[in-house]
Parts: sequence; structure tokens; C-alpha cells
Amino acid sequence: MSEVRACVVGASGYAGALAAKLLWSHPRVSLEAVTARADAGRRHDELYPRYRVPLLLEQFDPERLAGLDVALVSYPHGAAAEVVAMLRQAGLRVVDLSADFRLRDLTAYAEWYGEHKAPELLADAVFGLTELHRGEIAAADLVANPGCYSTAAVLALAPLARAGLIEDAVVDAKSGVSGAGREATTTTHFVSVAENLNAYGVEGHRHAAEIDQELDALGCGERVTFTPHLVPLDQGLLASCYVTPTRELDADELRSVFEEAYDGEEFVEIADRPPGVRDVRDTNVCRIATAVERRTGRPIVFAAIDNLWKGAAGQAVQNLNLMLGFDEAEGLW
Amino acid sequence: MSEVRACVVGASGYAGALAAKLLWSHPRVSLEAVTARADAGRRHDELYPRYRVPLLLEQFDPERLAGLDVALVSYPHGAAAEVVAMLRQAGLRVVDLSADFRLRDLTAYAEWYGEHKAPELLADAVFGLTELHRGEIAAADLVANPGCYSTAAVLALAPLARAGLIEDAVVDAKSGVSGAGREATTTTHFVSVAENLNAYGVEGHRHAAEIDQELDALGCGERVTFTPHLVPLDQGLLASCYVTPTRELDADELRSVFEEAYDGEEFVEIADRPPGVRDVRDTNVCRIATAVERRTGRPIVFAAIDNLWKGAAGQAVQNLNLMLGFDEAEGLW
Amino acid sequence: MSEVRACVVGASGYAGALAAKLLWSHPRVSLEAVTARADAGRRHDELYPRYRVPLLLEQFDPERLAGLDVALVSYPHGAAAEVVAMLRQAGLRVVDLSADFRLRDLTAYAEWYGEHKAPELLADAVFGLTELHRGEIAAADLVANPGCYSTAAVLALAPLARAGLIEDAVVDAKSGVSGAGREATTTTHFVSVAENLNAYGVEGHRHAAEIDQELDALGCGERVTFTPHLVPLDQGLLASCYVTPTRELDADELRSVFEEAYDGEEFVEIADRPPGVRDVRDTNVCRIATAVERRTGRPIVFAAIDNLWKGAAGQAVQNLNLMLGFDEAEGLW
Amino acid sequence: MSEVRACVVGASGYAGALAAKLLWSHPRVSLEAVTARADAGRRHDELYPRYRVPLLLEQFDPERLAGLDVALVSYPHGAAAEVVAMLRQAGLRVVDLSADFRLRDLTAYAEWYGEHKAPELLADAVFGLTELHRGEIAAADLVANPGCYSTAAVLALAPLARAGLIEDAVVDAKSGVSGAGREATTTTHFVSVAENLNAYGVEGHRHAAEIDQELDALGCGERVTFTPHLVPLDQGLLASCYVTPTRELDADELRSVFEEAYDGEEFVEIADRPPGVRDVRDTNVCRIATAVERRTGRPIVFAAIDNLWKGAAGQAVQNLNLMLGFDEAEGLW
Repeated sequence: MSEVRACVVGASGYAGALAAKLLWSHPRVSLEAVTARADAGRRHDELYPRYRVPLLLEQFDPERLAGLDVALVSYPHGAAAEVVAMLRQAGLRVVDLSADFRLRDLTAYAEWYGEHKAPELLADAVFGLTELHRGEIAAADLVANPGCYSTAAVLALAPLARAGLIEDAVVDAKSGVSGAGREATTTTHFVSVAENLNAYGVEGHRHAAEIDQELDALGCGERVTFTPHLVPLDQGLLASCYVTPTRELDADELRSVFEEAYDGEEFVEIADRPPGVRDVRDTNVCRIATAVERRTGRPIVFAAIDNLWKGAAGQAVQNLNLMLGFDEAEGLW
Repeated sequence: MSEVRACVVGASGYAGALAAKLLWSHPRVSLEAVTARADAGRRHDELYPRYRVPLLLEQFDPERLAGLDVALVSYPHGAAAEVVAMLRQAGLRVVDLSADFRLRDLTAYAEWYGEHKAPELLADAVFGLTELHRGEIAAADLVANPGCYSTAAVLALAPLARAGLIEDAVVDAKSGVSGAGREATTTTHFVSVAENLNAYGVEGHRHAAEIDQELDALGCGERVTFTPHLVPLDQGLLASCYVTPTRELDADELRSVFEEAYDGEEFVEIADRPPGVRDVRDTNVCRIATAVERRTGRPIVFAAIDNLWKGAAGQAVQNLNLMLGFDEAEGLW
Repeated sequence: MSEVRACVVGASGYAGALAAKLLWSHPRVSLEAVTARADAGRRHDELYPRYRVPLLLEQFDPERLAGLDVALVSYPHGAAAEVVAMLRQAGLRVVDLSADFRLRDLTAYAEWYGEHKAPELLADAVFGLTELHRGEIAAADLVANPGCYSTAAVLALAPLARAGLIEDAVVDAKSGVSGAGREATTTTHFVSVAENLNAYGVEGHRHAAEIDQELDALGCGERVTFTPHLVPLDQGLLASCYVTPTRELDADELRSVFEEAYDGEEFVEIADRPPGVRDVRDTNVCRIATAVERRTGRPIVFAAIDNLWKGAAGQAVQNLNLMLGFDEAEGLW
Repeated sequence: MSEVRACVVGASGYAGALAAKLLWSHPRVSLEAVTARADAGRRHDELYPRYRVPLLLEQFDPERLAGLDVALVSYPHGAAAEVVAMLRQAGLRVVDLSADFRLRDLTAYAEWYGEHKAPELLADAVFGLTELHRGEIAAADLVANPGCYSTAAVLALAPLARAGLIEDAVVDAKSGVSGAGREATTTTHFVSVAENLNAYGVEGHRHAAEIDQELDALGCGERVTFTPHLVPLDQGLLASCYVTPTRELDADELRSVFEEAYDGEEFVEIADRPPGVRDVRDTNVCRIATAVERRTGRPIVFAAIDNLWKGAAGQAVQNLNLMLGFDEAEGLW
């Protein structure tokens, strides 16, 4: 018998749909409801045959969900806050995949997303990058799952930030198209993406605020440059991080910083060669490799994730497992 | 009647094949011979139906080619030098697409490519980045066409280097698979590339030596960090260049540096938004956009080319046109 | 000096945009105006940098276009008829890329497209499959460019139909995504298409009516089965045609039927092996190969085109050339 | 404790590698050894990081494997027979993924593959299309896993063949590139496949012999036309089957034939709309949809599989489960 009763609110988008699939096959969770807005009334497995979740997508109704234990919320930024507030009111513990509770600084939030709809909950929210905040997440009632770019960038830079080794850094990130969401736009049209490759958000991208916040908390006061690119693939995200170090680092020392930082982590791998996003496809793994460029001595850190797994739904389930006292890998392999 | 009689030596690889197509349809050049090694005896349009060059690929024979005026050579690095020497001996003017004559420093050459087979020709060779060396190219008998990565990176950084504005720079470059050549390897297998994305050559890549040489010549003594990535597309190369400037630059000034530097250039475009490689597919254009990241003030320069055109065969024809006194765009639109 | 003044009405969709590019660089046509509906006010080369047409997209205004000689119209089915009528009224000769004037039978038209908005023009319209109707096209004031699927299927089957050799036929057609148009939908979203492949319109597709009409006219009374598939590529269309012949045919005879039928055709190639869509990418060529399956003796005909070229804009220009008395290949290589 | 000790012989190719992954995570099987030829000495998770099988690839040594219970063999056709014979000699039960034991007719085998190296074992071999031969497979010591094309085609046609409804049929099949194997060739080079699409083996393909054999056994004496195509995707195979029926069939009857035939099958789904290969990616499901074309009344059956799962390794594990008396879905979801 399953111990925990769960729902996914917003299960028709890419991240929410995968969250539903993960919970549907989770050995210790019973997925009781999936909701959607425009797609309510259709079956989840009609939209995502591959995931084989035989549930009807319902309209969101907090009363209907009131008896459940936990919710994963996958609404657009701005729209999530109110829904999360209702779910918390109804007594559910929540992992929110939107940006609404990631930034502790309301001014930073307002700059990117406008006025916050549930600021009273911010104090309770924990930033859900499991490897950095494991203890707080386990105790939290509201976890703010990090952005996909932040996940890769912060995992790539945190060990160096904590060690005071970052004087400056450039994060050149490349993401597959599922990261842009399920909305059909000129940008996500196959013909726009195939045989193409470009940067976007180059003057400033909202995930940078998350990266700043997390690196600040580790003692790195520097602002890192962050530039996202769109590449013609479905799932996958690679962050290539170029560090100007505060002192010289050789390849062995650089690697050992990461091996120590992530020793025992089930979902972080230190690899011998630059990771490909295919290496982590459909897994919750963040695969990291380090190098020192010979000519310049510059340390480089590569971090590859599947943006829908470790960058969204997989990490949400990892957090949920922690909150529920389960093994954090439950249902993720 | 065509004025100039040309051959392409090594016309079965991707760059050489396109060079043959460009010369076959060139209004002022008559393509008299195409050669190949393993594929000799087959027709060019059997290997590349799309290019519609109805010529038989011949074995290389310098005597057979002796009466011609010019040659484009597209052999692997190391193998090109000897062939170029024979062609020069036979009186042909040559554009060489390999790396064999790009580096003026034999030590740098040896580090990446081994012993040089025709060092006596190095003094005559001109680095064939048209926008930087137009005058010398016009007068040269031997032009060393730059590497695809160098082309994008140097065009992106040269205006800043010349103005003394680069204190440090990171070039994160992404290339389509045709840049890896026609050899069938695990790396170029469709299944290795599709739904994948990774860095390679991260400790040092041979094109870095070309970038150093060209930026040095413009007065920039700094070594830039250069990291190539392989992305799942056929043709296209994007260089994202992150500059630590010697002084603060705002967006307008940054852009004007490039507009002035490339004013009147037929094959360099300054765009309003980050270029996609699709914007330049099957053209000889290098499309550049600049930005200043708001949070950090860091100048970023993006340069997109088609690696087979501006990064190889197109640029070779552009150089050939110059050498022959033609309009440099002849046969390239 | 250009002899002919042209416009493209509906130049923001994929086919119309390419038509504009082809006319912009056409040696004997001056492109005087390009129009769009939602995108009016933007520049063509902002939407399609690769095509490099430096014109502003205007709102359609028949008075503004009245002085021109010819128009290519690339509007959606149903919307084209009225615009074509206005242009004809204004004295322009028209090639229409929509389906509005392809079907001579108004009932067949109504079944797929609803009520016809300009039935009075149908009698004048010529079906613009150049290889079948060259003479009529040259004399026409209104040419109805065929659908992309019809183009490949009819070119693949016409020689056999004319020879009375078809007892039954199955056309399994596969198209790249540009054939689905520029509208952003769930179907055209990159994530829906990448790593996917499926049939659609399987109970009946409107292009079947065109195929029937054209094969009927050649004496083939049979209805052929036609099933389109969507494949993860940008441009390209392959029709695999399985024929039940009225009598046994060996491979040599089969091939000779096609060689004779298309002898002298500049844009039809008979190949030795099954054509790939890459063989014809960005060309106006229809590449055909024939085979007889050994075990069953069944004749198979493969026809590959670029759906945007021979399947749309290229063929439109080929027709326009004929109408204007030019070489039909003018501006198409 | 695992009950069964297994090995994968030939675990470096795509199908064998996936077989190893499936057995590594199989709840009732212990994967004791993986072998390879050229890649022996490397780790499986170095070649396939995504599968996370932390075993060293060994050279094949029948003595070393003698104590194990079962083997999955994934060698090239021709090379498999001898290895299978040695493993059978050593007492292991075998599922062979090659073609060596699929054809009961040695003449048919010789036509495609040459002389058979272990004909004495043919009498014992069972054709491993689970849904057709479940009983025999459970009792077999040697199962010949079907080809990927045969799997889709036979599942799509068997219900009609059994009902005597096929007068003639055309199978137009489309496969992703992993079906062509891991060998790096011109055909599998990314640049050959991307933005391309073509038929191959059009005069006759060896999988046709398997299709014939299986449909014959169901009473369908007709030879079906079978034509494979290569499409630019990684995993996935779609068979579009066009049937000339022995009597008229309407859409409802057609569908009910399939619903009855596959009632209760865990790995065959009857869908409402044409299946996409993405619907079955990374699953062992064959997804089938039927349609009747309105104009011609022709029944069409579409069957989509993941060529590496239901078309190879997944089906092998399904068969293995049956042989071992396990639930046939064990380890496959």
C-alpha cells in the first residue's frame, strides 16, 4: 500500500507531465490527481502516450485536492504563487517548480516577474537544490525547485564558490527546446530550431538572479556572466563554466575540489571527459567534468543535466522524497 | 569564355566538395579537374548529388594539372603541404584549406601537427582571413585559408583587439558536424550526435594557435580561452565571445566598434539580435551581434558562420577572387 | 534592366518567403513589392535573414500593385481566391500557390475547402505542374501551382498512367515540417517532431484529389491510396509509390518508361539509386528512381523533391518563367 | 537474491548494450558478465554512460561463462551461430538477437547470409516474436529474436493474415539510425542522415524472408512488398502497411480484428490515431492503429516500435522472462 497521496497541479506541460509519470510509477506514492488548465478533460496518456499515465486531467480545485498529502506544482511563473497558497492553506506540502518562491529578495523577483502574489509564504520556502540544502528541504513544507539553468550552473560553481576560488566566471549554457516549454511559438517551431543555434536573453536572463543568490550564500560575492543558448535537441542542458580563479589551480586540484564536494552524492557524477547531454538523458544525474586549459591555465567546469529531470521534475521528486523521509532516489532510477 | 582554369585537389571531403561546386558555377572560372584519393574514379555528383558537378574524381597527378592557373587544396593537415609544394612547383597559385600554412611559427605548428613537410613555402604564405589581410591575399601565390573556428573567433575579436580593449576573453564555440569532416567515426555517427551536445578538446585545441597569432598581430598579447563544442546540426558554427575589457564599454560604443571595423564589408553583417547559424546557412556571411550584459557590464560578441562556406570553401573562393583580381563576391551569392 | 515587374503576395510564410528570395535574385524580374498580413511592417530579411531580401513587408493593397506585371500569391487555401481575383482584375498575371484553383471540379473543391470564392476564374486556371502542362502554362494568365505531395506523386506516376500500366497504386509520402507551414502549433513544435515520425490524414488527404485529377487526365481511372507522414527534417519530401501494374514490367523497361517520359527535362532527374531528399535540397529538381522488387515483381517509384522548391516556390518561378517567355530555369540554379 | 545468472555476449553494440542495461536493472536476474570484441577491456558505462552498467567488457570465453544460466547474444549475422553453439554446448539457454536462427529454411538463409555455421541447432530454435509464439518460447532453449522490421510488420499483419484477409500487402517501413548498427560508415555519418530521408534495399531486404515465413505460417501465402527507409532519428521504427483485402472491410471491423487479436497483450496497444515513434520511445510497446482510406476503401495498419526495445533488446528480455517462468514484463517498465 502506498503511504503518501499526491497530485500534480499543471501536469500538461513538459515538466509537470514528467512529474506525473514519475509519481505514477513511484513505489511509495499514490498519484491521486493530475490537473491542467486548457487541457482539462483530456487524458494524460493522450497528450503523452509515452508516459503511460492513465489519468484524466482535471481542472484545478483546491477542495478536491484538500485531503491529499503533497503536491507538485508546475504552473508558469506568476500563476503558481496563488495556487501554491491555496494548496498550503489546504494543508498540502508543496514542491513548486515555478520561479515564484526561489528568490528571497522581492526586489529581484519583481524585476523579472512582477508583483509577487503570495509574499507571505516566501519566508517558509526553501530553495530546492538538493545537494546544497538537503537538511532544510527535508523539514520544509514548501520547496522552490530551482530553474534548469541554475541547477547546472550552481552545481558547477558551488564547490569553487565555497572554497573562495572564484574571482570571476562566465557560464555559457546550452539548452534543448523542451526547456522553452510546451507553448507553440515561432521560437519553438521545428523549422526555427532545426539546423539552427543561437543565444538569447543576452543582456540578462532571470535565472541569473538564482545563480547570484546561491553563490552569494556560499560566500562568492561576484556576479557571474550567464548566457543561455537554444540548440536543436529535445531534452538536455549543458553549462560550460569558465572561471577566473583567485589563485592558480592545476587539473588535479580542481578535480579533487569536485570529488570532495560531491562525495557520496547519488545524482552527481564526476566524469573523466566532458559530459554529453546524452549521457544523462532521462536520468536525474548531473554529470560534471573539470579541465584546465593548458595555454591560459583557466579552470573550466562542464555540467550536463536533463533539463526535464534534474532540471525540473526529477529534482522535484528527489526533494519530495526527502520531505517524506524516503530514500531520495526512490522512484528515480 | 572563362578566364581562369582551376582545379580542386581533394574534392571528396565536405569542404573540397563545396569548393568544387562553387567553382563549377563560378562565372569567371572554369573548373578543369577535381581529384580525390579513396574516391578517385567516382563522379563528384554521385558522392554529392546536390552539388551537381558532373565531373569524374581523378587521382592527384601534378603533371596533369600543370597547365592550370589555380588550385584549391582540401587535404588533411600534414598531407596538404607536399601537394601544395608540387602545385606551386608546377606554377599554380594555391589556396590551401588545411592548417599547413596558417601558422608562421614552426614550433607552434609542430606542437599540433608534427614536422612540417614544406617549410620553405611558409614565408610566402598569407593567412587567408580576407577581412584582415585583403591586400596581401590579392598579391599572394599561396593563401592559407583559416580554420572555421578561427574565422569566427578572430572576426568577433579583431575589432576589440585592434582597439586595445581586450584584457581577457573566453571563446565558447559550437560547431555542426560537417566541421568534423567526412570520416566516419564514433564521434560522427548519427546516434552519437543526435540528442547530444558536448565540449571537446578542452585542454587545448589547435585552432587556438591561429587565434593567438592573429590577435597578437593586432596588438592583443593576451591568450584567449577557446573551447569547441559539437552540436547536432549539419552546417553552422557559432562563437560566443566573452570579453573582459580593459575599460568600461557601453552597448552603443561596443556596437559602433564593430560597425566601423566592418563598414563596407560584403560578407560581414552586424545584426540587432544574436545571430543564429540558420541565418547564414549556405552563405559566405559572418553575422555578428554585440551585447553588454547588464548585471556585469561584460561585453559579449556573437559570430555565426556556415563552417563550410565562410569557414572553408566560401572563404577560399573569396580569396581566390581577390588573387585573380575579380570582385571578391564573384560566384558567392 | 529587368523586363518584368513582380510582387509576392503573402511573403511571410515559408513558400512565399522563398518565392520572394528567388524573384529578388532573378536576373530578368524586378521584385517591386512583398506583402504580408500579420507581419506587415517588418522587413523580409528580419524574418528570413538567410534570404537577404531587404524589402519591407506591406499590407496587401491591389491599387498599389496595379501597375505590376505578375504576382506570386502564397495565401492559405480559401483566402487566396479573393486576392487572386483582385490581382487579375488589376491586370496582373498570377501564379497562385494555394489549392484554390487546382481542382477543376467544384464539388471536389468544396469537400476539402468549402465554398469557392472566385469560381468564375476556374475556367482560366491551368494546373501548374510544368512537366505535364508546359504549353498551357506558357499561355495562361492564372496558374494554379500544385501541392507539394501532388507534385512528387504525379511526377512519379504520370509516365505509368499515360502508358496504361497502373492497375492500382499506393503512395506513401514523407514530408519535412516546413510543409506544414509557419503557424506555430503543437504539431510543429520542435519537441513534437524531433525523434518522432507518424502518419496523418490517413482517412483522406486533400492532395489526393489533385493526384486523382491529374492521373485521370492521363487515362488512369484508378484511385490511388495516398498517405502522408511527418518526418523530423526541415525541407524535403519523398514519395514512395508502389504500383500494381496491368502487366509485368522488368527493371529495365520500368526505367526506360521514365527516361523517355522525362527526356530533356531540366528539373527531373532519373537516378540509379533511391533518391534522398538531401540530394535535392534547395534545388528545383525532382529526383526519381525506379526499382522492381525481386520477390514480388512489384514496380516501385521513388520521387524526392524539396517541398519548398519544386513543391512550391521553385515550381512557381519555373511556371512564371514559362508565362513570361523566359528560359524556364532562369533564376533557379 | 537474484534467481538467475545471465550474460550478454556482444554488449557493445546498440542492442546488446541496451540488453545489458535491462538485465543489470532486472529484479530477478543477476548480470554476471558482458563481452565485446573490439571494445573488450573498456567499461560498459564508458561506452554508454547513460545506461550506468558498471561492468568491464570481457573477451568472449565460453569456459568463463559456463556456469551461468542464460545468455543474450548480440553478434552480427553469421558470427552469432558459432557463439550460440558454444553457449548451448556449455549448457546456457540462449536468446540470439541475430538472424542466424530465425529462418527455418536453410536456402532462404543462404540467400541472404551465406552458409550456416550451426545448422544442427535450427530445429531447436523458436522464432521469438512473443505474441505469436509464446508457448514455444517458454519451453525453448534457443530463441531467435526477430528483426526489428519483421517485428513491426508481422505484428501489423498477423491478425489479418490469420483471418485470411490479405490478398496483397505493401509494407513501407521507416527506421531510425540505431537500427543500422554502431558501425561508423558513410551511411550512418550524421551529415549523411540529418536533413535526409531515403529508401534502401529496395530490390529485396533480408527481413522480408522473416515476414514471409511468419505470415505463411498463419496461412497467408502471398508475398508482401517490403521497403525500408532511413529517417533522421535515433530510435524508432514505423511500419505503414497497405493491404489489398480479400473482401471489403470497414473501419470498425478492421479495428476489432486487432483488438481481439491483441486482447490482453501487455506490449501491444491499439491506438485511436496513427502512432508516432515517440509514443513508444524507450518502451517495449508496439503501438498499432488502423484506418480505412475513404476514397479507395483500402485498409491501412500502422505499427510503431522502438527498434532497440521491442525490435531488439526489450523483446529479448520479454522472451527471456518467458523462458524463465517470470512475468513477461519483468524489468521492462
